[in-house]
Amino acid sequence: MGPEVRESIVKGVQLPVATTKINMVDLPLGATEDRVCGTIDIEKALTEGVKAFEPGLLAKANRGILYVDEVNLLDDHLVDVLLDSAASGWNTVEREGISISHPARFILIGSGNPEEGELRPQLLDRFGMHAQVGTVRDAELRVKIVEERARFDKNPKEFRVSYEAEQDKLQEQITSARSGLSSVQIDQDLKVKISRVCSELNVDGLRGDIVTNRAAKALAALKGRDNVTPEDIATVIPNCLRHRLRKDPLESIDSGLLVIEKFYEIFS
Amino acid sequence: MGPEVRESIVKGVQLPVATTKINMVDLPLGATEDRVCGTIDIEKALTEGVKAFEPGLLAKANRGILYVDEVNLLDDHLVDVLLDSAASGWNTVEREGISISHPARFILIGSGNPEEGELRPQLLDRFGMHAQVGTVRDAELRVKIVEERARFDKNPKEFRVSYEAEQDKLQEQITSARSGLSSVQIDQDLKVKISRVCSELNVDGLRGDIVTNRAAKALAALKGRDNVTPEDIATVIPNCLRHRLRKDPLESIDSGLLVIEKFYEIFS
Amino acid sequence: MGPEVRESIVKGVQLPVATTKINMVDLPLGATEDRVCGTIDIEKALTEGVKAFEPGLLAKANRGILYVDEVNLLDDHLVDVLLDSAASGWNTVEREGISISHPARFILIGSGNPEEGELRPQLLDRFGMHAQVGTVRDAELRVKIVEERARFDKNPKEFRVSYEAEQDKLQEQITSARSGLSSVQIDQDLKVKISRVCSELNVDGLRGDIVTNRAAKALAALKGRDNVTPEDIATVIPNCLRHRLRKDPLESIDSGLLVIEKFYEIFS
Amino acid sequence: MGPEVRESIVKGVQLPVATTKINMVDLPLGATEDRVCGTIDIEKALTEGVKAFEPGLLAKANRGILYVDEVNLLDDHLVDVLLDSAASGWNTVEREGISISHPARFILIGSGNPEEGELRPQLLDRFGMHAQVGTVRDAELRVKIVEERARFDKNPKEFRVSYEAEQDKLQEQITSARSGLSSVQIDQDLKVKISRVCSELNVDGLRGDIVTNRAAKALAALKGRDNVTPEDIATVIPNCLRHRLRKDPLESIDSGLLVIEKFYEIFS
Amino acid sequence: MGPEVRESIVKGVQLPVATTKINMVDLPLGATEDRVCGTIDIEKALTEGVKAFEPGLLAKANRGILYVDEVNLLDDHLVDVLLDSAASGWNTVEREGISISHPARFILIGSGNPEEGELRPQLLDRFGMHAQVGTVRDAELRVKIVEERARFDKNPKEFRVSYEAEQDKLQEQITSARSGLSSVQIDQDLKVKISRVCSELNVDGLRGDIVTNRAAKALAALKGRDNVTPEDIATVIPNCLRHRLRKDPLESIDSGLLVIEKFYEIFS
Amino acid sequence: MGPEVRESIVKGVQLPVATTKINMVDLPLGATEDRVCGTIDIEKALTEGVKAFEPGLLAKANRGILYVDEVNLLDDHLVDVLLDSAASGWNTVEREGISISHPARFILIGSGNPEEGELRPQLLDRFGMHAQVGTVRDAELRVKIVEERARFDKNPKEFRVSYEAEQDKLQEQITSARSGLSSVQIDQDLKVKISRVCSELNVDGLRGDIVTNRAAKALAALKGRDNVTPEDIATVIPNCLRHRLRKDPLESIDSGLLVIEKFYEIFS
Repeated sequence: MGPEVRESIVKGVQLPVATTKINMVDLPLGATEDRVCGTIDIEKALTEGVKAFEPGLLAKANRGILYVDEVNLLDDHLVDVLLDSAASGWNTVEREGISISHPARFILIGSGNPEEGELRPQLLDRFGMHAQVGTVRDAELRVKIVEERARFDKNPKEFRVSYEAEQDKLQEQITSARSGLSSVQIDQDLKVKISRVCSELNVDGLRGDIVTNRAAKALAALKGRDNVTPEDIATVIPNCLRHRLRKDPLESIDSGLLVIEKFYEIFS
Repeated sequence: MGPEVRESIVKGVQLPVATTKINMVDLPLGATEDRVCGTIDIEKALTEGVKAFEPGLLAKANRGILYVDEVNLLDDHLVDVLLDSAASGWNTVEREGISISHPARFILIGSGNPEEGELRPQLLDRFGMHAQVGTVRDAELRVKIVEERARFDKNPKEFRVSYEAEQDKLQEQITSARSGLSSVQIDQDLKVKISRVCSELNVDGLRGDIVTNRAAKALAALKGRDNVTPEDIATVIPNCLRHRLRKDPLESIDSGLLVIEKFYEIFS
Repeated sequence: MGPEVRESIVKGVQLPVATTKINMVDLPLGATEDRVCGTIDIEKALTEGVKAFEPGLLAKANRGILYVDEVNLLDDHLVDVLLDSAASGWNTVEREGISISHPARFILIGSGNPEEGELRPQLLDRFGMHAQVGTVRDAELRVKIVEERARFDKNPKEFRVSYEAEQDKLQEQITSARSGLSSVQIDQDLKVKISRVCSELNVDGLRGDIVTNRAAKALAALKGRDNVTPEDIATVIPNCLRHRLRKDPLESIDSGLLVIEKFYEIFS
Repeated sequence: MGPEVRESIVKGVQLPVATTKINMVDLPLGATEDRVCGTIDIEKALTEGVKAFEPGLLAKANRGILYVDEVNLLDDHLVDVLLDSAASGWNTVEREGISISHPARFILIGSGNPEEGELRPQLLDRFGMHAQVGTVRDAELRVKIVEERARFDKNPKEFRVSYEAEQDKLQEQITSARSGLSSVQIDQDLKVKISRVCSELNVDGLRGDIVTNRAAKALAALKGRDNVTPEDIATVIPNCLRHRLRKDPLESIDSGLLVIEKFYEIFS
Repeated sequence: MGPEVRESIVKGVQLPVATTKINMVDLPLGATEDRVCGTIDIEKALTEGVKAFEPGLLAKANRGILYVDEVNLLDDHLVDVLLDSAASGWNTVEREGISISHPARFILIGSGNPEEGELRPQLLDRFGMHAQVGTVRDAELRVKIVEERARFDKNPKEFRVSYEAEQDKLQEQITSARSGLSSVQIDQDLKVKISRVCSELNVDGLRGDIVTNRAAKALAALKGRDNVTPEDIATVIPNCLRHRLRKDPLESIDSGLLVIEKFYEIFS
Repeated sequence: MGPEVRESIVKGVQLPVATTKINMVDLPLGATEDRVCGTIDIEKALTEGVKAFEPGLLAKANRGILYVDEVNLLDDHLVDVLLDSAASGWNTVEREGISISHPARFILIGSGNPEEGELRPQLLDRFGMHAQVGTVRDAELRVKIVEERARFDKNPKEFRVSYEAEQDKLQEQITSARSGLSSVQIDQDLKVKISRVCSELNVDGLRGDIVTNRAAKALAALKGRDNVTPEDIATVIPNCLRHRLRKDPLESIDSGLLVIEKFYEIFS
């Protein structure tokens, strides 16, 4: 994935293609920047005297998913690198007199406990969607989850088999949604209303508008429709905008509620 | 314990088995991450020019017990590594262009003086159980302990022999409990009540529910029963939940008392 | 671009000339000073035993444009190096017993979010012009931008083609303005008024005066005129002086408004 | 003192014995952990390619006395290492893939000025006894000390000779006390009273009880008796418990006085 | 400029002399101490196995001028080194077992913006004179400077030629002042009055007195006189003493005014 | 000055003696601990493969004077090393598996500006005497010093010659005082009074008493007497005790005045 391939792509050369499963790469807490971005192969450098590039996790995650647990505890600079790559689709390494770029198109998923520390506002803004996960309060449901977990611990294989059909159905639904996505339409009127929500909530930049449009389309495609409905937008807009609102330090209610309030004000 | 063994396990290859005593590994204060997780063997790297993995304490503790004194003074990152391994059963090392995983299934036991510093709430939450140890106030009992200690200092061998029968009985009891554990049952009604205690105490996540279920079953097995009683739960639940409650900085009573209060409110 | 070339330039030797496109060099976040200024070539040093200079991004940006995103997050010292080179047109590296200078004439463009941190006042003062970029509040316009972006994402090539004519026209306009710039005149009376604005706004130093004169001339040239009008000055003066005013911490209005107010007071 | 010796000891092999003077090792301020615990012999590693252990001050102090001036200014971690070794009698080094243990049985004596910084409470607690040293206020006595010092400075040899008889007598007394120590008895009633003092002073753990018992026996042995008297206990108990009391920040009286007060309350 | 030359100087050996232009050495922001003081030549050390000294900027500035922009942002330790060398006329390097001294007689000129940070009082005190530079407020004059700058930017060569006569006259004046300096006299009465000003302003040490005497003589010499007048003293004394006064944090007026006030009080 | 010499001294071997001038070693600001204490000779280690000791400034200062300017800005640890060596007369280096001791008997003189930072109380206490240096306020005297300095700058050689007789006389006086010092007596009554001053001023330890006795004897010897008078004590006691008094943060008068007050109270 060195410069030669890039040149070939630029020249339009037809390269041989191999089909593989989508990678799910897990970034272990404490991985170094070297391991993430790739580095010089010391062994080759010492034995053969050449500067060889050893690809990192970003290269491995290319065309797949990169998952980071406790993303809020990662070094800001490393998060920056991840978001840069996720946004541009290329990882560029500039060090020790070497400049290498390779494609790094992946979906970045981060999770974390906000009580342990928050991301910088600007970094938060660069995440497309932001979901809040709470704890189930219903005791019966809790017991059910505890039992599922015990069932998994007893026999992981059997557990997976019992959910196979459900998982296959979901996978099919996603695959079909992916192929139908490009033909999903969104009315001009709805687009303007989305932008009005963003503008009246004082969302900086246009990432909020763009992401809401995309997410609404994706949801419509998942439901098998080729037209976005206001309900689609209502479902996705809190997750698309919640983290882009300026925090009022005196207010403790979830920003998502402010978004949905403004949605109803403008859409009805 | 390199990737080949993992592959063999995945392929279902039957590997030769050796029976050994359970290891009790002591993590000395000030051990480096290299020593804990394993590192590259410098000698081999320099003399043979290959990157060989030198296993660390986690590998040594595999299928045994890892004991950490003053766990609250350990670097947060190192505790994280320990808990990750303890939870997943695998230790993954990603550095200098090497990615190695080996099984690291061990029971982690930590001790410490909370007045010297606390663990981060999220780390505390990942410990299964949390016991509080106080000092004996009864003078006669203190004298007895002092005498036992003096007896040990005088002749450690003789001291150990005098307790051998008692120790053997305890070992037998544990072994028998281990084999009986899988057949211990817990009533649906008790499970729901456990989850109600957790839910009403605002315990985040479901680790509290899972651990209480497991600990109650283990206690029943130790007592030779195959059914969990409310008394079993009453015995273990303060240790399972005490450290998962949000601290109220104005309140100084032990969280365990709050747990037991809630237990009696729900179970009677 | 070592000392020999400098000597040749000093001696007036006629060097062979090659015409190339203007470089647009992007400084990636986290680039090291070595990579920016150039460093010793380790490979050559080890294998051939000589100290060879490996040029950095400043050398690459020579006679072009150097763009730095999030310039306010760059290490102050690195910004200093950039501004020194941008001002003097030479990059001088003094380290490990080596002193090398090479021409580094480039236009420096930085962008950043001031809420994430400000540049030191003295550094700010060394930027020629300072533009403030806000978010469009008009929903219809937002939708239009979102649609343009979607059109680009769908087919970047087609998108670029659709703007080619417009871009070519702009390029021509700039080229013609460049050649006409040296004949643009500015009346003595206007010059004095510019300096009165600077003086009455308590702008330290004379960079503000010099830059306003140059920017007004450049604007006149872009509009195809050879005489600066008060309107030209009104257009450029807020961007030339906004960042050179002492901040009054109690006042939250944009400094650009203070500049334009003073402009009208003095020019009418 | 490598693993082979340890194995031999475990196997009960009879090793040859050499009689030497007791070592008095002085830990110089600023000694590194390497120098204290021992490290890899770099010379051997480089020239012979083997990992050889080079013993440190702990090995040198084995079966002797280790003296640390300004122990309160030592790095907490280093004090920890010293106390661990002093307590267990073994020094274990775990680094760079090496694990070495050697016997390190020594008496640790530390001194320091508490106004320059205090030891962590938990470390303080691990010192057996804690003596407070004040300055003589009587002018005549001060002059006598000054004169002794001047006499020493003038002729150190002569000074030492003049005290030789006194020193010899003291040494004999200690040797005889050592051999008589194991036959010294302490009444059950006195033991309970010691533990009552500890318990009522809220001393955490049982180190206070154990040390007081041992110190009282040692004092009786030094006085040539084979029975501990309440006076023996009164003499040693302030030094054994003074540093184990929780500090009341509002109270400035010496903790030793609180100990002696409680002693008289319980023993009479 | 190694020890051999020093020895020769001590022995009075007549060394060959070469006449060169006075060096004007510019200390680039971010130069390392190695580069300033000189260091070991790594190349020679590795290839020839000897410790060779590679002279730094101080050696280059010998018998010339060393200019440091933003001297207030330099590391205090580096400023210290500069002032030590400037004061003693020798640069002594003590490191890695080498001790080398070479003459480093230069005039040190520093500039900086005090709003960006101040020098330590003691460092300030070691600068001979301290001038304050303000911004011209007169608009006509500002325009003239802007025009001069534009003229320079258009044709630097021509600009320099136009000032050549003026520059030559100034150079001549300085050369003649230098040769006349040793015969300039200052009346005993004036000397006492200078010391009274210093004493009554509570200037610590005698650097203020010495520098004022020298500066007044230099000014008289520049004006072609061989006698210092009170006017000479009035001209130089604010710059010689301004930075040696203790700052009263509540007073914001320039210390130079306090100096001139005291001057008039004592001299009239 | 390695261990062999030490052994020879211990064995009483008669070593050849060379007479040299007393060294005056200047510790340059920023000298490393390696350079002060001595270190391993890298050159020898690399070329000959042996660990050779390269002596530092302490070895050079042996039997001479070590002068440290700005001693209050030195790293506390380095000052500690200096005082340890000055007190014990030996420099012990313990690092990288080497333990070397060599004699380091020198007189340590430090100077500094207390406004720039104070020494730790315990370090201050280890300096024998502490003199305060102020600025001359008398203008005539200031002029005289300025003139002397100008005379030195003009012709250093001539200046030194003009003071030679005076210097020689002083040197003779010191030499004669040195030889007479051992026969100087101090009355028992005066000794007790000195210790009473120390005791009533709450001086910790006995260094104050010892130093005052020594300094008074030295002064008597310098004056050619063989008996200490109360006037001798009055002269030296403020310098011997001033820095050993606990600072009362609310009091700003010089501690030396408190000492002299107490002196008159007790001696009359």
